[in-house]
Amino acid sequence: MAKELVIGIDVGGQSTKLGVVNAEGEIIAQTVISSLQDELIDYINELTKSIKGLIAETAEVGKVKGIGIGAPNGNYYKGTVEYAPNLRWSYDNDGKPTVIELAALVKSFTGLPVTITNDANAAAMGEMAYGVARGMKNFIMITLGTGVGSGIVINGEVVYGHDGFAGELGHTIAIRDGRQCNCGLKGCLETYCSAMGVKRTAEKLLSNNPDRQSPLRAIEMGKISSKDVYEAASQGDELAIEVFKTTGQILGRSLADFVKFSAPEAIVLFGGLARAKKFFHEEMVAAMEENQLQIWKGRIKILYSSLKDSDAAILGASALAW
Amino acid sequence: MAKELVIGIDVGGQSTKLGVVNAEGEIIAQTVISSLQDELIDYINELTKSIKGLIAETAEVGKVKGIGIGAPNGNYYKGTVEYAPNLRWSYDNDGKPTVIELAALVKSFTGLPVTITNDANAAAMGEMAYGVARGMKNFIMITLGTGVGSGIVINGEVVYGHDGFAGELGHTIAIRDGRQCNCGLKGCLETYCSAMGVKRTAEKLLSNNPDRQSPLRAIEMGKISSKDVYEAASQGDELAIEVFKTTGQILGRSLADFVKFSAPEAIVLFGGLARAKKFFHEEMVAAMEENQLQIWKGRIKILYSSLKDSDAAILGASALAW
Repeated sequence: MAKELVIGIDVGGQSTKLGVVNAEGEIIAQTVISSLQDELIDYINELTKSIKGLIAETAEVGKVKGIGIGAPNGNYYKGTVEYAPNLRWSYDNDGKPTVIELAALVKSFTGLPVTITNDANAAAMGEMAYGVARGMKNFIMITLGTGVGSGIVINGEVVYGHDGFAGELGHTIAIRDGRQCNCGLKGCLETYCSAMGVKRTAEKLLSNNPDRQSPLRAIEMGKISSKDVYEAASQGDELAIEVFKTTGQILGRSLADFVKFSAPEAIVLFGGLARAKKFFHEEMVAAMEENQLQIWKGRIKILYSSLKDSDAAILGASALAW
Repeated sequence: MAKELVIGIDVGGQSTKLGVVNAEGEIIAQTVISSLQDELIDYINELTKSIKGLIAETAEVGKVKGIGIGAPNGNYYKGTVEYAPNLRWSYDNDGKPTVIELAALVKSFTGLPVTITNDANAAAMGEMAYGVARGMKNFIMITLGTGVGSGIVINGEVVYGHDGFAGELGHTIAIRDGRQCNCGLKGCLETYCSAMGVKRTAEKLLSNNPDRQSPLRAIEMGKISSKDVYEAASQGDELAIEVFKTTGQILGRSLADFVKFSAPEAIVLFGGLARAKKFFHEEMVAAMEENQLQIWKGRIKILYSSLKDSDAAILGASALAW
């Protein structure tokens, strides 16, 4: 009998990663396509052809029985991607992001059942099945990427809420009346503790402190990236290190409040920014403990994803398809 | 065959209410005892005698098969009440609140199975079974009493978390570095949006605005109660009305963030302060909407408990025992 396989798909703003996963959780074939198409039909065309290519490539190993997709603003209940500002092909004729029936489209052109969840939920499922959260029933996944996403697991299940959109912790207010966020609100956690937030904190520190030296001054204002800040910190630049310390402090305060909601066993950090942990971990933990209720002080594990970013999302999305 | 009955017990700081509940959710007999005993043995003695009295009183109707208790800091997993500052008999010899094995004690002296949860969770279960949240799978109960408690329901289940203490939303930070809370933190929601918070806001407004007239000035500073503020507001006192508006605004902001966690169908407000809704509802909703993500604007129901306070807690606790 042929082995059963599934396809996990990680839809990102820049690229879409696809992997064929076996029952042991191994990615036995994978590919990547661009997500930058302006037309929905072009994206779907490329996506379904890649899926068919992977199916053909692994036909001797086994039979693909379903597809799981992790996507920004993905809705598990409805199979949709809704109002995702970072996905170009999701914009309507008036230039606004709209509702895309992604599951129905992919199913129409592949004939396979398709399940969708948001990208952070998919990452949480990946960690629960194959990563540092293996065996855990209660944890919160925080994805620190271009933005801040979250996947909340309670009693072993991802929380979707009444409408499928639960877990928007990146848009809880970290600083009241703080930085303007793309979502329209001010002071969202995402405006401080994401790659974009690191960039903004660095630029603010540089402009507020004209006398402080930093290799970051060699870069044109507005063009500093979080990677530049990371590299400066790695070279010992105190201003860059301070950027990460501030980031850690703001994140730690918010994490303390998240714990008060669901009393998780652990918080799992994931994504590009998590790689800078040596620069922010200590301040983050200190701020979290300082803002924690007595019953949880010193008791909530902080874990960092052990999976490669793309693998966690592919594996998590694939877990949906089983 | 005799009908099956259960006993629901609502442990409060001042009094403990007990009710015998039938399968239809009717309280067929009830009594109340003081919670103000200093000695644990005195409290347990009175409690178990009241339980036995109720069992005898309803013996002709049916047989009591179990006991459910809602108590501050009650832990569902462990059957304990842990470090509850408002329960005098829970203090140890050094004058600090400690861990009380309440379920085991009540079971020892009654011979009946005993289940415990915290008081806000019990109220949430009461609303779900018999109140405004009937049939709802996802809602957040906020109890606005002396303090602020919360019970979170996801997929039809009360969230207990890894350790049984989930749902401490009263101690999420509403205002960073704000008012000192009994819990040791600063700026907890509870320090603003509880009976105690209303008192503090009123006293602050009075002392910051010596020129503003208010009937509350007739009361000695430090002795103003939330009830006094409510009565002044009912008489049209603008300062008292402003107290409630401020309270509503702070509460609304926090509610917006709670929605971002679990995407509930509704938020249910309960407790003494909820009775002042006509003075704070509008500002609360406005602040919640202003701080809400687009996907939830205008979509989250705000409901007020329709059960009598003591009934909801007794009924909720009884639901545990079935």
